[in-house]
Amino acid sequence: MKRRTINDIAERAGVSKSAVSFALNGKPGVSPATRERILATAEALGWRPSSAARALSGARANVVGLVLARNPSLLAAEPYFVRLIAGMETELRTEQTGLLLKMVGEEPQRELEIYRRWWSQRQVDGVVLLDLRVNDHRADLVAELGLPAVLLGRLRGSNLPSVWVDTRPAMDAAVGHLADLGHRRVARVRGMRAFIHTRERDTAYRAAARTFGMESAVIVDADYTGEQGAKATRALLDSPDAPSAIIFDNDVMAVSAIGAAHDLGIRIPDELSIIAWDDSPLCELPRPALTAMRMDIDGLGAAAVRILREAIDGGPTTSIRFGTWELVERASTGRPDESRRRRS
Amino acid sequence: MKRRTINDIAERAGVSKSAVSFALNGKPGVSPATRERILATAEALGWRPSSAARALSGARANVVGLVLARNPSLLAAEPYFVRLIAGMETELRTEQTGLLLKMVGEEPQRELEIYRRWWSQRQVDGVVLLDLRVNDHRADLVAELGLPAVLLGRLRGSNLPSVWVDTRPAMDAAVGHLADLGHRRVARVRGMRAFIHTRERDTAYRAAARTFGMESAVIVDADYTGEQGAKATRALLDSPDAPSAIIFDNDVMAVSAIGAAHDLGIRIPDELSIIAWDDSPLCELPRPALTAMRMDIDGLGAAAVRILREAIDGGPTTSIRFGTWELVERASTGRPDESRRRRS
Repeated sequence: MKRRTINDIAERAGVSKSAVSFALNGKPGVSPATRERILATAEALGWRPSSAARALSGARANVVGLVLARNPSLLAAEPYFVRLIAGMETELRTEQTGLLLKMVGEEPQRELEIYRRWWSQRQVDGVVLLDLRVNDHRADLVAELGLPAVLLGRLRGSNLPSVWVDTRPAMDAAVGHLADLGHRRVARVRGMRAFIHTRERDTAYRAAARTFGMESAVIVDADYTGEQGAKATRALLDSPDAPSAIIFDNDVMAVSAIGAAHDLGIRIPDELSIIAWDDSPLCELPRPALTAMRMDIDGLGAAAVRILREAIDGGPTTSIRFGTWELVERASTGRPDESRRRRS
Repeated sequence: MKRRTINDIAERAGVSKSAVSFALNGKPGVSPATRERILATAEALGWRPSSAARALSGARANVVGLVLARNPSLLAAEPYFVRLIAGMETELRTEQTGLLLKMVGEEPQRELEIYRRWWSQRQVDGVVLLDLRVNDHRADLVAELGLPAVLLGRLRGSNLPSVWVDTRPAMDAAVGHLADLGHRRVARVRGMRAFIHTRERDTAYRAAARTFGMESAVIVDADYTGEQGAKATRALLDSPDAPSAIIFDNDVMAVSAIGAAHDLGIRIPDELSIIAWDDSPLCELPRPALTAMRMDIDGLGAAAVRILREAIDGGPTTSIRFGTWELVERASTGRPDESRRRRS
């Protein structure tokens, strides 16, 4: 069963392609008798209006685009991205819209080309932009193209619709949890500094450290991989003024820190407390299981699609501050046992 | 900058939409002068042929479809799916084809509807079918629709192109590794039996157990989640004839088994050896790190796209047996220390 085109209908009905188009779209230009014959032929051939035809007439592609511009093995290891997509899908499902996915590695320039192509060829109705950077050319591009877009995060100077997570109250809760347990020297192993959300966490972390009167609150750079998470952990534990607690910017680095501490003979949580940001099924797997900041990633993805739909429909620009979080206390955080702390 | 349609060109050039269509497609029906004017207008407006227009004329959508019909939180936890997609993308990249993704949960009926809609509306040129089941209606449906498709796995009675993994030599290597270490009682915690690949592993596992003269080689049912992986581990360790080694059908269950054994005070690998199938970054995170069967998931995804492209182009039906694997020995397998084995 081959797909039927308006060419097939035209041939079978013995009319021009334009006549078929006029008839099927209820436009003038064909006689009532011809229109009737064309419609009967279309039905006999099992023809259905294609998304292509609808798109050509200015209607929707019924597709939302998402570019993932990260190292594929990191995308695979970190549950975040699939959860975000799953959240988007719950919302897309209600309207039978598809998700066009592109994984490009860390190549911002390629990402821009993809938006141009998607929009010029009408492959998508709009896009969700992830991992906003300090110098991000995507917002300018989609504005220039007129491509509806929603930002996952905030971008100064942009008036595109956005869904952003307010990190501050969650960071206060995480650092406050450590302060309550008696920690005075904390550290944070962060993800790439090129991302705005990393910098927002920097600010929130420093503010929380001041609020809770931490003696020291260092930040160590890493790249979200288990390898660098373990390396940063070893470096922190080997330093003369080692922290008694570390907050990690993702689950993968925090899980690998458990292994790194184990290899060094450091007991968790007695000698080192660990918090993962954010929570995922991975955090339940190690021993001790990880205390983690749980964000509503699915809800974030769903909200992004809802706002994108409004943008596609030409509604007013909406921004949603997303503040749903929960500190899930497991076994990786506890009172620091400073007396037994190993020193390098 | 709004997207330009042939309506815009028609209006600006003062001609009919059909005339624009004829001119842009290089067909007769317009005078040379009018054609010239239309083309100049199109260029001035920055018009580019849309994928919709190409699809309408019978050309390609330049999109490949993939439906993931599993529990979203499992999709997120297990790196397999993103790695498969990443592998597909490496191949799609060369031809600027998109991947249309749909996550439907465990609802086979919905999956069928999606293929019907995708094909009738020309949203995809072909699809990759995952997780083949014993009674799988998808192969019949795509054959009936004429929708190009490639099977990831084998399906008896179907002559669709396929990429399948030969489990036997890999299973021989895994069970042989345990036999070499001195294990005589092994177990396997499997994924859903509805999947054909689970049954193929059953057969391969039983054959390998015979080959290596295992005293016992039980199989326990689970569902790929960490929760059930831990539960199956506890049940096996509590049984009177507990195995000294367990092979898990995915990485998530194997990692959770490390935690479950830890909670029971069972030492790995002295009292219990564990093999994960297949390998992923997750397997490097626990202590001890997991010995794992590494399959070339990226290569599998890329091969599926190559074969699908042939099917879309109307080439002969191809099937590829995929036999690339490697047993990565880490610390979770060792000689069984039977004397110190805890009994319930």
